[in-house]
Amino acid sequence: MELDLTKPSKKAGASPGTLAHVGRRRMDDIRINIITYGEQHLVEKRCIAIGACKAFLEGPGVAWFSVTGIHDAGHIEDIGDLFHLHPLVLEDVMQSEQRPKMEEFDGYIFVVLKMLFFDKEKAGVRVEQVSLILGPGYVLSFQESEDDVFEPLRERIRMGKGRIRNMGSDYLAYAIMDSIVDHYFVILEEMGEAVEALEEAIVSDPKTKTMHAIQKLKRQLISFRRAVWPLREAISSLQQVAEPLISRDLSAFLRDLHDHTIQVLDTEETFHNTISEALDLYMSSLSKRMSQVAQVLTMVATIFIPLTFIAGVYGMNFKYMPELAHRWGYPACLLLMLAVAVGMLLYFRRKHWF
Amino acid sequence: MELDLTKPSKKAGASPGTLAHVGRRRMDDIRINIITYGEQHLVEKRCIAIGACKAFLEGPGVAWFSVTGIHDAGHIEDIGDLFHLHPLVLEDVMQSEQRPKMEEFDGYIFVVLKMLFFDKEKAGVRVEQVSLILGPGYVLSFQESEDDVFEPLRERIRMGKGRIRNMGSDYLAYAIMDSIVDHYFVILEEMGEAVEALEEAIVSDPKTKTMHAIQKLKRQLISFRRAVWPLREAISSLQQVAEPLISRDLSAFLRDLHDHTIQVLDTEETFHNTISEALDLYMSSLSKRMSQVAQVLTMVATIFIPLTFIAGVYGMNFKYMPELAHRWGYPACLLLMLAVAVGMLLYFRRKHWF
Amino acid sequence: MELDLTKPSKKAGASPGTLAHVGRRRMDDIRINIITYGEQHLVEKRCIAIGACKAFLEGPGVAWFSVTGIHDAGHIEDIGDLFHLHPLVLEDVMQSEQRPKMEEFDGYIFVVLKMLFFDKEKAGVRVEQVSLILGPGYVLSFQESEDDVFEPLRERIRMGKGRIRNMGSDYLAYAIMDSIVDHYFVILEEMGEAVEALEEAIVSDPKTKTMHAIQKLKRQLISFRRAVWPLREAISSLQQVAEPLISRDLSAFLRDLHDHTIQVLDTEETFHNTISEALDLYMSSLSKRMSQVAQVLTMVATIFIPLTFIAGVYGMNFKYMPELAHRWGYPACLLLMLAVAVGMLLYFRRKHWF
Amino acid sequence: MELDLTKPSKKAGASPGTLAHVGRRRMDDIRINIITYGEQHLVEKRCIAIGACKAFLEGPGVAWFSVTGIHDAGHIEDIGDLFHLHPLVLEDVMQSEQRPKMEEFDGYIFVVLKMLFFDKEKAGVRVEQVSLILGPGYVLSFQESEDDVFEPLRERIRMGKGRIRNMGSDYLAYAIMDSIVDHYFVILEEMGEAVEALEEAIVSDPKTKTMHAIQKLKRQLISFRRAVWPLREAISSLQQVAEPLISRDLSAFLRDLHDHTIQVLDTEETFHNTISEALDLYMSSLSKRMSQVAQVLTMVATIFIPLTFIAGVYGMNFKYMPELAHRWGYPACLLLMLAVAVGMLLYFRRKHWF
Amino acid sequence: MELDLTKPSKKAGASPGTLAHVGRRRMDDIRINIITYGEQHLVEKRCIAIGACKAFLEGPGVAWFSVTGIHDAGHIEDIGDLFHLHPLVLEDVMQSEQRPKMEEFDGYIFVVLKMLFFDKEKAGVRVEQVSLILGPGYVLSFQESEDDVFEPLRERIRMGKGRIRNMGSDYLAYAIMDSIVDHYFVILEEMGEAVEALEEAIVSDPKTKTMHAIQKLKRQLISFRRAVWPLREAISSLQQVAEPLISRDLSAFLRDLHDHTIQVLDTEETFHNTISEALDLYMSSLSKRMSQVAQVLTMVATIFIPLTFIAGVYGMNFKYMPELAHRWGYPACLLLMLAVAVGMLLYFRRKHWF
Repeated sequence: MELDLTKPSKKAGASPGTLAHVGRRRMDDIRINIITYGEQHLVEKRCIAIGACKAFLEGPGVAWFSVTGIHDAGHIEDIGDLFHLHPLVLEDVMQSEQRPKMEEFDGYIFVVLKMLFFDKEKAGVRVEQVSLILGPGYVLSFQESEDDVFEPLRERIRMGKGRIRNMGSDYLAYAIMDSIVDHYFVILEEMGEAVEALEEAIVSDPKTKTMHAIQKLKRQLISFRRAVWPLREAISSLQQVAEPLISRDLSAFLRDLHDHTIQVLDTEETFHNTISEALDLYMSSLSKRMSQVAQVLTMVATIFIPLTFIAGVYGMNFKYMPELAHRWGYPACLLLMLAVAVGMLLYFRRKHWF
Repeated sequence: MELDLTKPSKKAGASPGTLAHVGRRRMDDIRINIITYGEQHLVEKRCIAIGACKAFLEGPGVAWFSVTGIHDAGHIEDIGDLFHLHPLVLEDVMQSEQRPKMEEFDGYIFVVLKMLFFDKEKAGVRVEQVSLILGPGYVLSFQESEDDVFEPLRERIRMGKGRIRNMGSDYLAYAIMDSIVDHYFVILEEMGEAVEALEEAIVSDPKTKTMHAIQKLKRQLISFRRAVWPLREAISSLQQVAEPLISRDLSAFLRDLHDHTIQVLDTEETFHNTISEALDLYMSSLSKRMSQVAQVLTMVATIFIPLTFIAGVYGMNFKYMPELAHRWGYPACLLLMLAVAVGMLLYFRRKHWF
Repeated sequence: MELDLTKPSKKAGASPGTLAHVGRRRMDDIRINIITYGEQHLVEKRCIAIGACKAFLEGPGVAWFSVTGIHDAGHIEDIGDLFHLHPLVLEDVMQSEQRPKMEEFDGYIFVVLKMLFFDKEKAGVRVEQVSLILGPGYVLSFQESEDDVFEPLRERIRMGKGRIRNMGSDYLAYAIMDSIVDHYFVILEEMGEAVEALEEAIVSDPKTKTMHAIQKLKRQLISFRRAVWPLREAISSLQQVAEPLISRDLSAFLRDLHDHTIQVLDTEETFHNTISEALDLYMSSLSKRMSQVAQVLTMVATIFIPLTFIAGVYGMNFKYMPELAHRWGYPACLLLMLAVAVGMLLYFRRKHWF
Repeated sequence: MELDLTKPSKKAGASPGTLAHVGRRRMDDIRINIITYGEQHLVEKRCIAIGACKAFLEGPGVAWFSVTGIHDAGHIEDIGDLFHLHPLVLEDVMQSEQRPKMEEFDGYIFVVLKMLFFDKEKAGVRVEQVSLILGPGYVLSFQESEDDVFEPLRERIRMGKGRIRNMGSDYLAYAIMDSIVDHYFVILEEMGEAVEALEEAIVSDPKTKTMHAIQKLKRQLISFRRAVWPLREAISSLQQVAEPLISRDLSAFLRDLHDHTIQVLDTEETFHNTISEALDLYMSSLSKRMSQVAQVLTMVATIFIPLTFIAGVYGMNFKYMPELAHRWGYPACLLLMLAVAVGMLLYFRRKHWF
Repeated sequence: MELDLTKPSKKAGASPGTLAHVGRRRMDDIRINIITYGEQHLVEKRCIAIGACKAFLEGPGVAWFSVTGIHDAGHIEDIGDLFHLHPLVLEDVMQSEQRPKMEEFDGYIFVVLKMLFFDKEKAGVRVEQVSLILGPGYVLSFQESEDDVFEPLRERIRMGKGRIRNMGSDYLAYAIMDSIVDHYFVILEEMGEAVEALEEAIVSDPKTKTMHAIQKLKRQLISFRRAVWPLREAISSLQQVAEPLISRDLSAFLRDLHDHTIQVLDTEETFHNTISEALDLYMSSLSKRMSQVAQVLTMVATIFIPLTFIAGVYGMNFKYMPELAHRWGYPACLLLMLAVAVGMLLYFRRKHWF
């Protein structure tokens, strides 16, 4: 989620559908793991060859092909051939700067999501793209690196917990998306803590550093929103897809997923507002303090400037200044000064200036 | 309505439909109360067992099952089995951070609302979630604690006042929602008083404390809006539901409920604007006063600085300063000072600076 | 249009459709006046009993029942029984804080509008609610007090001017609404004068009082908008109503009424913008003047502070200060001061500071 | 386009459809000119009587009746009778404060547009209303004064240039509207020059007068927008009108007209943004200069105030001040002053204050 | 993309469909190049005569007629005759200030796009209009000058790379649009570098020049948006066009193109936000520094003004000032001054003013 403004977002001039990796390379090898399962059976294999996929694809039950690494055009093309995918789908899979979206093709559905991680060290959010192909009896998922948020889901499949072993591939695709959206709440929690910490810092000890941290957090919130906002629409479109790819039983689940996405966006908005309010409060308290300081100067200066002038007058060296020789000149002068000072204070008081 | 930014809004990683309580636990036991009624009969029981519900469910007339306490997954699941509810509905019932919404399922309607209370001590608004299941002949309601706003409604059922005893379960569900929305007006009254008090305080005696109180009230208004805003859409959707779950006779009532919700939101907006205006007025009056203070300093300083300079000149100790020895030097000097002062005042006056 | 924030906008806890007056009581008795007319006949009666209405209702031609006073639940209920009105309609009629709206019921249409008066004494706008029931052959209108804007309309009916005597009850309802909207233009004229006066005042003589008057006018404009804005939608909905309640011939008239409403809102917006612009111009001219004042101080101070310092140096009483004893010390010192002053002025001039 | 806030925009209380002129009277007589034409023939008459129109109306080809002057209710009514126009249409024709709109009636279409002129002397934009009635075989146009932008169009009809002589009355109506919209570009050019001049003036020589000119131009741009904006929708609606009033061949032309209107609005928006940006840039440069001036004062004052204090100390007249009698007291004092000044300058420099 | 406010955007008064060039003339001759191709054949000719086009138009495969130069009305008209184009299409082709749009005509589709170039020397973006006519078996493209971004596409056609040689003229039109949109990413890269450079400059060394550069970049971003924004809608409309002009196979490609356009707009928005944020940060850091400077002055002045007053008092020349003669007068006076200074510092410290 680092904002890298100069990245080559697309290879200009190439033929549409030309496969080229766009993004940072996060790993060396491309791996394919597979889990196939039905009500009664479960097979799990790691690092299978592309050729071996075919057998699983035609087997009974649901097969989840999980591809890790998206930088090798040849591999991706082989997979595309096996699953009869449109070249533009493969192009999108390899470009890790896609917006979340859902597209319906003949015989399969293509969904792009953003998987988010919180990077404790950098105190930042890391984005990874997940592409899903939902076809009859299988789900094909692409991710950029080994890290993912799907381990609890895999465990549920292995244990046969929940209803997943009795449902089709559409439920599997839903469960994968649900895992990703669920993880957004974890990110929000981390961000919420950061928001609270900064909110406190801004009140107790407002430094320029705090301002920079707030700017950074604001930017992260915007990036977060950008990663989640289009997902809402994508899930909405998924709800419109007709049978057989998405069965009617799934509609309640998709509606639930939609609700969660809105909830995530709502929370993000709350954070945004909280920060803005804290900043406003800080700004107004800053300007209030400034004006207090200025007011003290104003009054001190306004009172002493005339007094100093009087002192200056009687500091002049004219020969003939009758007051100077007078016995009570000095006390009278001091009294005059006192009178001026008190008069001004009364005037200020009447104007409610202090 | 305390803004608790770090709350775990959802249990990440669990299977969708897994029941887990999210929110503060407000009571120890879960209780089920029931009122069944028809034109001629009325039965009311408190603290019945789940098993005993079945008989009432199949009886004649309308049955209102009111469940208090949503933290025990086992209980909720039992209720879900009895009423054939979707696991996701149960999941939503147990999570007290839902947005208001309405969802149609096969054979029943699921509505989530926010019941609001004004907490005099904390001078804040407390939110509690109410979930409604409207099925043929019954309404099942879930609330977090014993406190509720339904006592007048129960009394109307008991007394047979109004048309409630002659209408179906859809009217009961409407009446429950109406009770909640009616109570929003009470909250608005309390808030309106707070708004007026702060509006006055800001003009008469603007302190930093007032600013904080205003920030707090603003936040409360936003939370209020957030709790009511989605309800508008939910009621709109309810108006679209076809027979038999919601009879045609109810449409005028739902339209009325919709109007009330809009009226509530309108009033909230008025409060919001009133506060913003008061703040603006205060800010501009503050900056005006500041500028008046500054202007006085400016004039005092601008007039006396040259005079003090003149005094300083004749305070110098040069041996040969002919003016000093002159008989009329001192009066002439004073006259010069007077002339400078008057000249400047005239200049300021011509410029309309005071 | 006084903004009364703590008013009990609704009676919480009562059964929906319970009749209770909400608003200020503006008169003591409830009166019913009636005008029935056709192409050839005209009957007008004042203060008839509710029972007597029935005869007119069944008579030929068009009957306009005009009810003045909405605070007596019993009376209103009797009228509701006679005209077979829905309890929620009666509830809305008695609550004078409704938003303008149009609702279609079986056999009649219910419209709520706001009648506006300009109160010269208070220099404010007074709002009164008018509820219309348009049924076959009759219009039933409710207003809060005797004051209304319908006298020219009644005169037209009496004189048989225009096409009103040849048209149905839908035209009568239209004519009533048209009278109300026409009167908005009168209000706008009054407000326009206030806007112009304030615009002038703000430029010629900006006082805190002017600011308060502007705030008040702004609030009135917002209230005005709030009273008119929803009417636009209500009239739009009226245009959708099918025969027989609203005949096809009326569509051109309703479209015209819709146009007028938009024109009213447009003018209101222009006023709003004019005030905002005047305020902006004032603010910028204020800050400009402030900065001019400050600049003069700056220059005076910046020039004289060093000069005073020089004077101070030669005012010191050190024994051995060779300059003091020098014959040309004093003139040289004055020349030095002059040089410093001129040098600074040249520097300022080069920087374009004055 | 003078903003006359107190004008009586409508005669309140009159019967709908009552004819009364609203606006400034721009000429004395009402004149009707006519051009009828077909592929082979062309007849043009000036100042014909209303009665004489009928013959032309029933003749072959297309007839353009151009009425100049809209203030005489009797005349307008006669024309309305002849062309069977709805009273509300006539009412709208006579009120020169209509918003641009298009309304479909039985047998004819009614369009209201704003013709704009640039008034070089007043450096302002003058608005005139043009009303069009498009019926089968004829176009009836109303304008407020003799000035118009249709001369090139008339010339094209006379010369038989372009396709106008081969097309129906719908094309004539389109051509009239096109002439008006084309002239908007001329106005935009004039305004563009004004915008550029002001943009330059604001940078080179920002005076209060410039500010007023900018305010005036902004207001003109808003009025311009207000005159053109609703036209977009009106033309959109025209595109929806079915045959026979508007033939299918016209759709490309109307789409083109629609595009031009959007282009006009786009350009207006660009002007608006350009002015706003110029103002922003000016404001920030103003405040920057202000702060530079203030900074110089700050530094001069901050440096000399302590020095003057030191001078003041040694100007005191205490008997026993050992430093005063010291041989090197004076130079030491001067050195001390220098050290303080240099120290402060170094401090400022380290803080990057200059 | 120079904002030329006074350009004659349209020739007012001319007949609609009159051909006249609007824009800068970028070259002298008009040239037509042609490429026709099929799966097996490829013919490419440069600078052919208009008459020669006909043969290619009727030949097999796909023909791409590329017209360079749009300023000669006669030539354009000849081309229009040959391809049976609507006069308004030709008018639009010759006016280089069109908004991007797509229009469907009988037998062909008309698309207008903006081709963008980055001009390194001027550090600005140059806009050129490209008009496309997509008919059965041919694409006719108009561009203003020889420079274009289609060379890689032509090379792909020549080499037979990708699927272009197997697809129809609709794919060719798509490929041309894709080339243009792809090039937007190149522009974005250049702009991104400029944004980053300015973001850095604003923090490290904020000068007035930087402000001007930012204003310029902002304006360029707005122009960029203006050139791309309407394209989104145009491509959307293209997706709605039925067969046979656009085959079903193309829909995935158009959807992809649509996505890219949105991505372009998203990136542009990010740039916009980045600049705004940088400016905000700069402004707040500027005002913070200003206030620090002011605070130092305030404290120095507030402390020394009273001290100078005390010095002034004992600099007075009254005869009878007992303190002056006192042995410890001077040290006592200095102690008093110290006490005042320390007291004030303590007061400031307690108020947290430094």
